[in-house]
Amino acid sequence: MAHYDLLVIGTGPAGQKAAIQAAKLGKQVGIIERKEVVGGVCINTGTIPSKSLREAVLYLSGYRQRNLYGAGYRVKDAIAIEDLAFRANHVITREVRIVENQMARNRVDMIYGQAGFVTPHRLQIRQRDSVIEHDADYIVIAVGTEPARPPHVPFDEESIIDTDGLLTLKRIPDSIMIVGGGVIGVEYASILAALGIPVTLIDKRPRLLEFVDAEIIDTLQRQMKEMGISLFHEEEVVGIKKGSDHRIHVTLHHAQPIQATTLMYAIGRVGATAGLNLEAIGLKADTRGRLVVNEHFQTAIPHIYAVGDIIGFPALASTSMQQGRHASCHAFNHADRTDTDLLPYGIYAIPEISMVGRNEEDLNKAEVPYGVGIARYREIARGQIIGDENGMLKLLFHSRTHELLGVHGIGEGATELIHIGQAVMAYHGTIDYFVDTVFNYPTLAECYKVAALDGINRLPRPWPPIN
Amino acid sequence: MAHYDLLVIGTGPAGQKAAIQAAKLGKQVGIIERKEVVGGVCINTGTIPSKSLREAVLYLSGYRQRNLYGAGYRVKDAIAIEDLAFRANHVITREVRIVENQMARNRVDMIYGQAGFVTPHRLQIRQRDSVIEHDADYIVIAVGTEPARPPHVPFDEESIIDTDGLLTLKRIPDSIMIVGGGVIGVEYASILAALGIPVTLIDKRPRLLEFVDAEIIDTLQRQMKEMGISLFHEEEVVGIKKGSDHRIHVTLHHAQPIQATTLMYAIGRVGATAGLNLEAIGLKADTRGRLVVNEHFQTAIPHIYAVGDIIGFPALASTSMQQGRHASCHAFNHADRTDTDLLPYGIYAIPEISMVGRNEEDLNKAEVPYGVGIARYREIARGQIIGDENGMLKLLFHSRTHELLGVHGIGEGATELIHIGQAVMAYHGTIDYFVDTVFNYPTLAECYKVAALDGINRLPRPWPPIN
Repeated sequence: MAHYDLLVIGTGPAGQKAAIQAAKLGKQVGIIERKEVVGGVCINTGTIPSKSLREAVLYLSGYRQRNLYGAGYRVKDAIAIEDLAFRANHVITREVRIVENQMARNRVDMIYGQAGFVTPHRLQIRQRDSVIEHDADYIVIAVGTEPARPPHVPFDEESIIDTDGLLTLKRIPDSIMIVGGGVIGVEYASILAALGIPVTLIDKRPRLLEFVDAEIIDTLQRQMKEMGISLFHEEEVVGIKKGSDHRIHVTLHHAQPIQATTLMYAIGRVGATAGLNLEAIGLKADTRGRLVVNEHFQTAIPHIYAVGDIIGFPALASTSMQQGRHASCHAFNHADRTDTDLLPYGIYAIPEISMVGRNEEDLNKAEVPYGVGIARYREIARGQIIGDENGMLKLLFHSRTHELLGVHGIGEGATELIHIGQAVMAYHGTIDYFVDTVFNYPTLAECYKVAALDGINRLPRPWPPIN
Repeated sequence: MAHYDLLVIGTGPAGQKAAIQAAKLGKQVGIIERKEVVGGVCINTGTIPSKSLREAVLYLSGYRQRNLYGAGYRVKDAIAIEDLAFRANHVITREVRIVENQMARNRVDMIYGQAGFVTPHRLQIRQRDSVIEHDADYIVIAVGTEPARPPHVPFDEESIIDTDGLLTLKRIPDSIMIVGGGVIGVEYASILAALGIPVTLIDKRPRLLEFVDAEIIDTLQRQMKEMGISLFHEEEVVGIKKGSDHRIHVTLHHAQPIQATTLMYAIGRVGATAGLNLEAIGLKADTRGRLVVNEHFQTAIPHIYAVGDIIGFPALASTSMQQGRHASCHAFNHADRTDTDLLPYGIYAIPEISMVGRNEEDLNKAEVPYGVGIARYREIARGQIIGDENGMLKLLFHSRTHELLGVHGIGEGATELIHIGQAVMAYHGTIDYFVDTVFNYPTLAECYKVAALDGINRLPRPWPPIN
């Protein structure tokens, strides 16, 4: 039994940053992990593996180069799951070590075991051979989520899998149906299609990723179709059956039945709150296992915070880190100066998508007069050099003051590029900044200048600038 | 004979932007090109071909992936010159068309032929079958440069070539000696080494690229050596001879003689002023054919401007464009708001290098108290995913105010990343901006946060922030 200033449950991005922030403020901190390795879903089954897989697929399939060299160029004709897993495992091992080192360097106690509440200030930690208890002034719940596994889906870990199941498959599927067009479904659908696998994506909404700019999603959906993905919108699965032919047969609400060798169920994730014994302290998760928090990430019990995927949207590693930091800053009365209006979103589909600031819907709702400027990668030299014909960058700006209000991008490097616009927005800069700035040539960053000029040229002005 | 508000000589980046800027200001503009196609050295023999070649080599050689998959992974074992030229030609064709369209759209007259001065306001243009003359109120000289070809180098366009000669070779050299460690020499040396060709680089200075941060150059030189490049510093070629074995034998000032199948002479470029008949108007180029200009790019004759490579350092497409725009703005009394303190530099070696703002030497000279923060790509998840172990981002900032003063980067994507720091510097932001900002995960942009934290942690402070 020890007493901590802060105990954190979960070692994913949110938990890590909560623990380190508190340690940097001079606090006694312990962090609890129920798995054998640190890192949570992010490192072990989610973000890192899927992004590593994406990079491996892009390389091994020659996808990036097809526009320039033709489809004949690919590194390996028969790509094995080991080829794909190789990079992921390499990165996972190193990331785990980095997190462990970071905890050690900041003198955060690593405690392995399943944590459960005894009282609002006391946790019991069940370990392989023992049960220990620790007290803390503050507790941060950062336990993350698990794939939802509804009873009507006959998961078998071979041909009917959840989103954690892909990288543990023994072989690459011959064909796959993905149920659910959220971020994870879209990322895996495009990655597998780039590998050359027939992919069907079934989503119940009229378009994918409704929180993303409509024009960006049009581009995404067009590219997904060009990659050979069959997209079903406003469609639902009503039956899943494994046939005697070992194929999975799916009955749909509207369309004809479909089939493939594999089905990935990618609808929803549920909070990993089982085992936390929340009842003991009177906290209640919602039907999807999520916890409700205020703007400082406090639960109904003020000294208990919840951060990361467990509190729902956007459930991105980057925002989860910020939530973790904020919770510790708030607990220990330290100012957190993060500008949460400028949280970026990154979606690692093929092509990748990113955005920061406001979208057209927001601006219309707020009746802000705005202009739009667009640059397409094919218009700039770097876009041609890398062979990305479809990428685009879209700027939204105040039509009178020219203040930059939102940046929306799709295409190679979009998740990096967005941070240029984010910096300008942080300083309330205008799109004229991009007109007046010299960019390296040839870079994708030049899209900012082309888009700014496009935006200004569309506005009525006596002397439109050059393009 | 026509009268123009502006005549521009040369259709490279500097000339293009001068012409279009003036056209956008409502002026009558003509642009003169002596070659058969527009674009100048940038599109046809310089920037675009070398950057396309670089991209092709990175892909076809599997260079980027060697750290992750081993050297066995390469797309083509026998890479032919056609494979390398394919992408370059594709991009060149498109870029030429884009420039032509842009001129047409802005109603800039395209005039083909060799321009020479008759009077300070009149140009004679010699065409295949005729000679025409045009007058102009203002003239912009943007004729660029050509490789220097000193008489003691026995160029034969096969085994002894200049920097324009590589892409027209019939086959990839078995081995190459590159004389001159400037930007072009360094770029080609690293690109050819990535292809697996034995490369020797001979430079007369103690280190490569003296205008670049010393730590960045250390990293570059280390990586070049790891790629198998033999680097000779403070060395000069005193004799070049073609042997009976068809190899090129080179005598050096200090070291033992060296040999290879090919020699590329990459020392210096000279202004392409021959044919301009500068004598007629009393303008004189220096010994390297360069024109001297003031801060508005005016020559000794105020209505005649010179921009781009013809005026010397830095001779980058990006800065040349800005010079072209500035000259036209100045001629026609239009404000040019470009912040020339924040011109970025991009060097497309393998690895690529970029920088903006001030370097340590500047800051020491100006006695500015500064701190240094460094992030290495291997510390961040994206660096591991792409397998770039050696990349780094270095921030220089005022040690009291934390204002960001310079950004220096080496590694994949450095030329794009630099623009995040450039934006922060434009608004006189501090490195605390990076600490307080949420970056997409996993991106290289996260280096800014890691470097900022590193910089702040090295300063004495009561509560160092988290890392």
